[in-house]
Amino acid sequence: MQDNVRDLLGKEISCLDKGFVRLIDVMGDDDAIVQAARVSYGEGTKRVTEDRGLIRYLLRHLHTTPFEMVEFKFHIKLPIFVARQWIRHRTANVNEYSGRYSEMKDEFYVPAVEQIRPQSVTNKQGRSEQAMPPDVASRIVSQMEETQRELYDEYQSLLGDNLARELARINLPLSNYTEWYWKIDLHNLFHFLRLRIDPHAQYEIRVYGEAMAELVKQVVPIAWEAFEDYILHSTKFSRNELAVLASILPADLPEEASLEKFGLKGREAREFLEKVRLHLQRS
Amino acid sequence: MQDNVRDLLGKEISCLDKGFVRLIDVMGDDDAIVQAARVSYGEGTKRVTEDRGLIRYLLRHLHTTPFEMVEFKFHIKLPIFVARQWIRHRTANVNEYSGRYSEMKDEFYVPAVEQIRPQSVTNKQGRSEQAMPPDVASRIVSQMEETQRELYDEYQSLLGDNLARELARINLPLSNYTEWYWKIDLHNLFHFLRLRIDPHAQYEIRVYGEAMAELVKQVVPIAWEAFEDYILHSTKFSRNELAVLASILPADLPEEASLEKFGLKGREAREFLEKVRLHLQRS
Amino acid sequence: MQDNVRDLLGKEISCLDKGFVRLIDVMGDDDAIVQAARVSYGEGTKRVTEDRGLIRYLLRHLHTTPFEMVEFKFHIKLPIFVARQWIRHRTANVNEYSGRYSEMKDEFYVPAVEQIRPQSVTNKQGRSEQAMPPDVASRIVSQMEETQRELYDEYQSLLGDNLARELARINLPLSNYTEWYWKIDLHNLFHFLRLRIDPHAQYEIRVYGEAMAELVKQVVPIAWEAFEDYILHSTKFSRNELAVLASILPADLPEEASLEKFGLKGREAREFLEKVRLHLQRS
Amino acid sequence: MQDNVRDLLGKEISCLDKGFVRLIDVMGDDDAIVQAARVSYGEGTKRVTEDRGLIRYLLRHLHTTPFEMVEFKFHIKLPIFVARQWIRHRTANVNEYSGRYSEMKDEFYVPAVEQIRPQSVTNKQGRSEQAMPPDVASRIVSQMEETQRELYDEYQSLLGDNLARELARINLPLSNYTEWYWKIDLHNLFHFLRLRIDPHAQYEIRVYGEAMAELVKQVVPIAWEAFEDYILHSTKFSRNELAVLASILPADLPEEASLEKFGLKGREAREFLEKVRLHLQRS
Repeated sequence: MQDNVRDLLGKEISCLDKGFVRLIDVMGDDDAIVQAARVSYGEGTKRVTEDRGLIRYLLRHLHTTPFEMVEFKFHIKLPIFVARQWIRHRTANVNEYSGRYSEMKDEFYVPAVEQIRPQSVTNKQGRSEQAMPPDVASRIVSQMEETQRELYDEYQSLLGDNLARELARINLPLSNYTEWYWKIDLHNLFHFLRLRIDPHAQYEIRVYGEAMAELVKQVVPIAWEAFEDYILHSTKFSRNELAVLASILPADLPEEASLEKFGLKGREAREFLEKVRLHLQRS
Repeated sequence: MQDNVRDLLGKEISCLDKGFVRLIDVMGDDDAIVQAARVSYGEGTKRVTEDRGLIRYLLRHLHTTPFEMVEFKFHIKLPIFVARQWIRHRTANVNEYSGRYSEMKDEFYVPAVEQIRPQSVTNKQGRSEQAMPPDVASRIVSQMEETQRELYDEYQSLLGDNLARELARINLPLSNYTEWYWKIDLHNLFHFLRLRIDPHAQYEIRVYGEAMAELVKQVVPIAWEAFEDYILHSTKFSRNELAVLASILPADLPEEASLEKFGLKGREAREFLEKVRLHLQRS
Repeated sequence: MQDNVRDLLGKEISCLDKGFVRLIDVMGDDDAIVQAARVSYGEGTKRVTEDRGLIRYLLRHLHTTPFEMVEFKFHIKLPIFVARQWIRHRTANVNEYSGRYSEMKDEFYVPAVEQIRPQSVTNKQGRSEQAMPPDVASRIVSQMEETQRELYDEYQSLLGDNLARELARINLPLSNYTEWYWKIDLHNLFHFLRLRIDPHAQYEIRVYGEAMAELVKQVVPIAWEAFEDYILHSTKFSRNELAVLASILPADLPEEASLEKFGLKGREAREFLEKVRLHLQRS
Repeated sequence: MQDNVRDLLGKEISCLDKGFVRLIDVMGDDDAIVQAARVSYGEGTKRVTEDRGLIRYLLRHLHTTPFEMVEFKFHIKLPIFVARQWIRHRTANVNEYSGRYSEMKDEFYVPAVEQIRPQSVTNKQGRSEQAMPPDVASRIVSQMEETQRELYDEYQSLLGDNLARELARINLPLSNYTEWYWKIDLHNLFHFLRLRIDPHAQYEIRVYGEAMAELVKQVVPIAWEAFEDYILHSTKFSRNELAVLASILPADLPEEASLEKFGLKGREAREFLEKVRLHLQRS
C-alpha cells in the first residue's frame, strides 16, 4: 500500500451534521487493475505499452472486470433514511449496527436551515432549488430537533420499563443515525457513485458519495480520471436524439489532427470519428 | 399454472396488525425442478424413476441449482424496521414504495399487548418469553399509538408547509408501514425462510416468513416437504459434538431394515448408516 | 400469459449448425413492469397516464428495478466455447448438462465456410470482415470435422475402457455442444443482449443473442422498443468528445416544436434540450 | 498485513501437473472479522471478551457477514474443465486469460497414472477407488498426451493459415490450461471450499481447494479452525435421522461438566445440551 493511501486510513471525513466516512482498508490500486487486465489479455497487451492508456481503454470499452479487482472497505455513520437508499446497492458487503443487540444512540440528523426547501415542482422526487422563508425554515428545524429529543426520551423510558430493545426502537425516527462497515469493489463503487453523486440523488446521500469520491480519487487516480471522462461527465444520446444531432451537425467531419487539442488522439480519436460516422452522419 | 396455485394469486394474507403478503405470480412448480435437474443429469437420471425421490435427493445433497428455476413474486406490506432486516437478503428483486415520490400513509405497526415483552436475559438480541405486567404493557401500547399519531400529524403539517417530501418524512418512525414487490427464486427463498422462521428471528419478521411458507407449501409441496425434512427440522452437530454423541451411542448400529419405520429406506438409509459409521463410531 | 407468448413456448429456434434456443417459461410482461413501478411511485405516478410513457421513462432514467420483475427461462444448446463466454454473466440461474454424470453427445460446432475468416488486423480479439481463399476455408472446415470425429471416437474408446466419464471427456474439444437451462430477469437480460448483440461480440454468441432478442421482443414489445431507442441504438460521448461536438454544433438550438418529427416531444424533448444546453453549448 | 502473510504472497503452490495457486493479495485477517462484528453488535459485544470466542460464536450461529469483510485474491492456473466447474461459484470476481486476444499455450493436463480410474459404480458422477490395470492406465496416459500434441499442432497450423484466434481454438480440448485472477470474500470462499474439498468433488478441483485451504489457514487461523469444527467436520442429520438417533441414544444426557473433555464448555456446552434435548430426546 502506498504511503499516501496509508495516510488516508482511519481518518473521519465529516458528512452532514453528525455522520462520517472513514476508509478502513483498500486492496489494490491502479496497478492492480493493469495487472488483472494483463492476465486476461496475455500477450495481447504487449502493444499497449502504457498503463494509463490501458486503464482508459478498459473503462471506455466496458471491460469492467479488472476494476472489480480493487476493493474498498469503509466505516460509515449515516441517518437511517440514507441507509435505506444505500442498501439497495446489493453488490457490497455490510455489517450494520444492530438495534436489537445494542441501544441506539442519541444522534439524529437535523438538516441545516438552508437545506429546508420546498417540494420541487419539476422533480416529483426532490426538493426545489428555492429557499423556504427563513422564519419557516428555522421553525421547522427547531421542531425537528424537539421531536427527536422527545422520541429519544420516550425510547429511554421504554428501555427503563425493560421493554425489549427490538421493540423499544420501533418509534425511533428515520433521522436516527446508524453505522456500518461497507465493502465494495471499484467497479460497483463507480456504479454507486455515478448514481449517488448525480444531482437527482437526494442531497443527504450525495454528501456521502462526494466524500467517498475524494478518497477513491487518491487511491486510484488514473481510474478515477477515466471514470470522470468516460462515465461521470459523459452523456448518452438516444436513437432519436442522435437523429436530431445528425440533422444539425455540419456535413464535414473534423480532421483527426484537429481533435488533439480536445485531448483525443490515436485510437481514441479514430474511435470518435467512427462513432460520428456511424451515428451522426446524415445518410 | 395449476388451478390451486392460480387460486392463491392476489389474495392477501394478513400479517401483524396492518400488513399483508400477497402472492403475485409464480414461475414453475415441483415439475420445473425435476425438468431442470434432468437437463443437468441427462441420461444420468434414468435410474431415478420417481420425481419425489429426485427432488429429495437434490436437496439432501445440496444440488441447489434446480431449485433456482422456480421463481416467486410477492406483494408485501410491512413496517420499515422489518423491511430493514428483510432487505439484507440481497439475492432478490425489489420495488419499494418511495417516500420521496409519494406521501407516506397513516399506518403504523402497534404491537399486540401480548407481544409487549421484556428484554430477554439469555438472548441479547430478543425479547423474553415472559409477559410484562398487563398494565405496563397496555400503557406502552397506548403510548406508542399516541406517538405515532403525533408524528403523522407533524408529517402532515410539514407537507402543509410545502417542505419537500424527502425531508418531511425523516422523523417518521420505523414502525411506519411501507410496501414492496419482492421476487426471489426458491433456493434463496428457502434460505430466507430458514433464517426468518427460526425462533431467533424477531417475531415481527417471523410472521411474514410463516405466511410465505404457507404459500410456498402449496406451490411446491414436494420440495417443501424435503425442505422441512432436510433443512428446517434438521440439526447440525460440530466436530466436538459428534465426538460426544459417539461416546454415548451404543456400539451396534441399527440394521438397515429397522430404519424403514423412521421413513429411511434404500439409498437414504444407506447414506445415514454411512454417515453414522464415519462420524459417530468410536474408533 | 398472453396467447402469443404461450405459442412461443417450447419452440426451438435454430442457432449455428446444431444449437438452439427454446423459451421455456416467462413470468410477467410489459404490464408487470408498470405494475411494479406503480408500487414504487405510489400516488406519484398518477400523472403518467400512459403505460408506454412510463416504461420509456423508467428505462431512460435508469430506474431499472421494475425490469427485474420480468423473468425468462430458456433451454439452450450451445458449443462449450460459447458457454464459457456466456457464463461470465453471473446474475442468472443455470443448470448445465454434466459430463461427469452423463455421456457427452456426438455433436460439435463446425463453422460455415463463410465464417472461416482471418484474424482481424484492427480488432485483436476478432475475425476480419474479409473472407479466406475458398479452398483454404473448405480445407479448414473438413479438417475440423475430421478432428472432431477422431476425438469423439477416442472418447468412446476411453469409455469402452471403462475410464470414468469425468476423465474420458477431458480431451473433448471446446466445439462440443452442451446444453443448459438459463433463467434471468429482463434487466440483466438487456445487459447481456447489449454486450452480446454488439458487433464486437464473437459471431457465435451473437447468433444466440439475436435469437433471444426475437423472443424478448414478442414478450415485452414496449420495453424492447425502449431498449432499442435508449440503449441498443444510443451512443455515449465522453467529456472530451462532447467538447468536440460542442465546437462544431451551430450556436442555435432547434426549437422544441421541431423535434417532434424526430419522435421527441413533451418531457423527452425538454430533457434533450436540457442535455444539449448542459453538455453541447459553447460556453 | 502480518509478516507471515506477506511471506505467502506471490509464491506458487503447484497443483496437478502444470497448474498452480498463488496468493496475490489479502484484505483483512481474524481481527478484521472481529472489528466488523463489533460494529454490528456495538455495546452488545462487551461481554464477549475474547476474540476467538466471538469468531467461533459468529460462525456457529450463521452470522456470516463479518466473514465477508476479509477478501482474498488468487492467481490460478488450471485446466479448462476445472475452470468450468469453478466458475459456477458466482460470488467472485474473475479475469481470465482470453483465447480471443492471445494464443493459447501448449500446456495440457495429463492425469497421473494412478488417477486413471474406472467409472465408479456407486457414484454416478465420479471415479472408482479402484485402479485400472497398470498397462491400460499407461496406455491411456500416452494416448491422451499424443492427442494433446496433435491438437496443439493443428491449432498452430490453423494460426499459420491466419485463421482468427477465436476460431482456431475451438478444437482445443478441455484439458488445455487457462489462468485467471480470482477474488472472493472469506464467507463465499468457505462455501467454495466446503463443496470443493468434499470427497464428492472431482479430484482435479479438490487439489486446488486444498492448496487454497493451506493459504487461508495461515491468513485467518482462528476463523479456519472454526470453519473446520462447525462446518467442514460437522454433520447434519435430517428430521428422520434425528428420530433414529433419538431411538438409540441412552435416556440420560451427559452432564455439562463431562463435555469439557470434548472441547465443549460454557455457552457452547449449554447450546449442545439444548439441541440434544430438543432433537434427540425421546418424547
